[in-house]
Amino acid sequence: MMREERIKKIFSLTKKDVDAIIVKNSNLNPSFFYLTGLPREFYEGAIAVAWKDGRVDVIVSRIEQTEDSELIFHTVKDSEETKKLLKQLTKDANCIGFDGIHTTVSSYRVMRRIFQKKRFYDVGRDILRARLIKSKDEIEKIKRACRIASIVADEIVDILKESITEREVADEIVYRLRRYGARREAFETIVAFGRNSAIPHYLHGEKRLKKDEIVLVDFGAVVDGYISDISRTFVYGRASERQKKMYEVVLKAQKIAIESIKEGMVFESLHKKVQRCIDKTEFRGRFIHSTGHTIGIEVHDGFSLAEGTKEKFFDGVAFTIEPGIYLKSIGGIRIEDDFVFLNGRVKRLTHAPVFLETSS
Amino acid sequence: MMREERIKKIFSLTKKDVDAIIVKNSNLNPSFFYLTGLPREFYEGAIAVAWKDGRVDVIVSRIEQTEDSELIFHTVKDSEETKKLLKQLTKDANCIGFDGIHTTVSSYRVMRRIFQKKRFYDVGRDILRARLIKSKDEIEKIKRACRIASIVADEIVDILKESITEREVADEIVYRLRRYGARREAFETIVAFGRNSAIPHYLHGEKRLKKDEIVLVDFGAVVDGYISDISRTFVYGRASERQKKMYEVVLKAQKIAIESIKEGMVFESLHKKVQRCIDKTEFRGRFIHSTGHTIGIEVHDGFSLAEGTKEKFFDGVAFTIEPGIYLKSIGGIRIEDDFVFLNGRVKRLTHAPVFLETSS
Repeated sequence: MMREERIKKIFSLTKKDVDAIIVKNSNLNPSFFYLTGLPREFYEGAIAVAWKDGRVDVIVSRIEQTEDSELIFHTVKDSEETKKLLKQLTKDANCIGFDGIHTTVSSYRVMRRIFQKKRFYDVGRDILRARLIKSKDEIEKIKRACRIASIVADEIVDILKESITEREVADEIVYRLRRYGARREAFETIVAFGRNSAIPHYLHGEKRLKKDEIVLVDFGAVVDGYISDISRTFVYGRASERQKKMYEVVLKAQKIAIESIKEGMVFESLHKKVQRCIDKTEFRGRFIHSTGHTIGIEVHDGFSLAEGTKEKFFDGVAFTIEPGIYLKSIGGIRIEDDFVFLNGRVKRLTHAPVFLETSS
Repeated sequence: MMREERIKKIFSLTKKDVDAIIVKNSNLNPSFFYLTGLPREFYEGAIAVAWKDGRVDVIVSRIEQTEDSELIFHTVKDSEETKKLLKQLTKDANCIGFDGIHTTVSSYRVMRRIFQKKRFYDVGRDILRARLIKSKDEIEKIKRACRIASIVADEIVDILKESITEREVADEIVYRLRRYGARREAFETIVAFGRNSAIPHYLHGEKRLKKDEIVLVDFGAVVDGYISDISRTFVYGRASERQKKMYEVVLKAQKIAIESIKEGMVFESLHKKVQRCIDKTEFRGRFIHSTGHTIGIEVHDGFSLAEGTKEKFFDGVAFTIEPGIYLKSIGGIRIEDDFVFLNGRVKRLTHAPVFLETSS
């Protein structure tokens, strides 16, 4: 039912008169999961054919795990049978939609050879736009992923101790995410001590924690194919005056962002607002990434809250707000939480406490 | 130096007169890592331009982590600058190579717009063929990944206890892989109890372990971008006669495979040999996947040891041998180890003990 609506939405967003959308499953392609609801770790190489009325045919070499009776499964022995079946299923279709954002050139070439006389149209962007608006069921899954990330974020301070390495903290975070019910980490967990935190994309290394150093963590959980994404920054001990100032500005920027969001607001205007908010302080120019991004079945679920993004806040948009300030000599401070825009207002999904100093 | 040879090898394998190979970094594209040696978690959206003489230009928005002085880095502000630089770098190139196996249709379209007057040639297959032969340095990394997987495989029996869930065992495996130095699990860890083990692609669930049940584990480690892949099957307690028989046939099939490999042997002939070996027993038709696959920077590093694969064993080929027998009513038994063909013979890289019953 949910899936049916999802598929109808994609077709309604498509400008061309596409008859069927064909997506092959691979780790690289979130669209198969989006169209079928089948976990993408299974069904290696399976092919989904989605129709205007919401029906989905799935061509598989064997049926793996599913309790889904709404999908129409076809079991085939080899690629010859696959081709034959694809041709037969689409014999009345004139225009085939494909996901150009996730389909590789060689897969596309194979498709073109199978459907020599049909037109092709790239619906990649339309699928992303459909994904932007989450259903109730999708929000429930994101919420659960957020709950697990929040619990682990709340426990970071218990994990920290003098001379623990960044890697050891990351290992512990991943272990706890899984223990609390995550399928896996949503992306490679970031743990940065001291000046390492000044590099926004730093992952984790063998650096050992010293007193009064910055600890920046950034991680998320995967639950039923949906992700969360949270960042916290602490000072292990006592913060300097400058660190306190950075922290206050970041926290204030996040607060202003949350309060500014209105229905119909364009993503890039929010980003500009946050940037202005930081740029009018002594940390001008030190907010060096986007304000956030949409979340869902991917960590970056299609759109950034950044300059150039014209998408708007509407019911069902799930996203992060993550201002940060980065100074080479001191380190970085970033605070990131997850939200969903619902019934005309912003609802927070991550609930871990926010504070700077671990000594009280 | 190593990278230089690697790149020259790709150009030598290419039939067309390609002047430069252009690859954009993404999580989906192992070729960027292969061409540059830069970890793909960093350098989001960076572009590598590789030349016949082994040089590599790298276009980045910021320089992240590297001690590599051999790459030629160019820092750009935005996509306009990237385009300008790409055009300038390739002004004397007539034919551009790209990796069609990993480049998406939309990325390719962007490339074509930038280089309107140049010819394009898909070198995806040539890169895979270059990757097939590992250098000393690459084998060292695979070895380290194998060592970590072997230690954890050896500890599985210590983790098992009555009523532990599959997921809990998987969590423990991942935790130990990381603790012993893996960057992460190489793929989603498989832990299957009882009849779940009859599904080769089963991952793990909430099933609890009972006495005398099969425990099938399949996992691997990532070390410096290279992977290992190991499977072991135990019976938690005492095995039935039929399970013992299955186990013996699988073990023998693996032994025969290892002993059969000769320089220049075609992958598919090895697979046929293993299949015949199992098919002449009472378990005819119950070996339902390929005999193995090459390993390296990806778990399936380009080629399967399966029907239809015409590649051959040569010095530097790293691969798995993983025969299995699957019976719905009993479960599955699979034994998988990693090997490299070197100096004319097969060298085992995984060294975890192989046995069936956990009670002695």
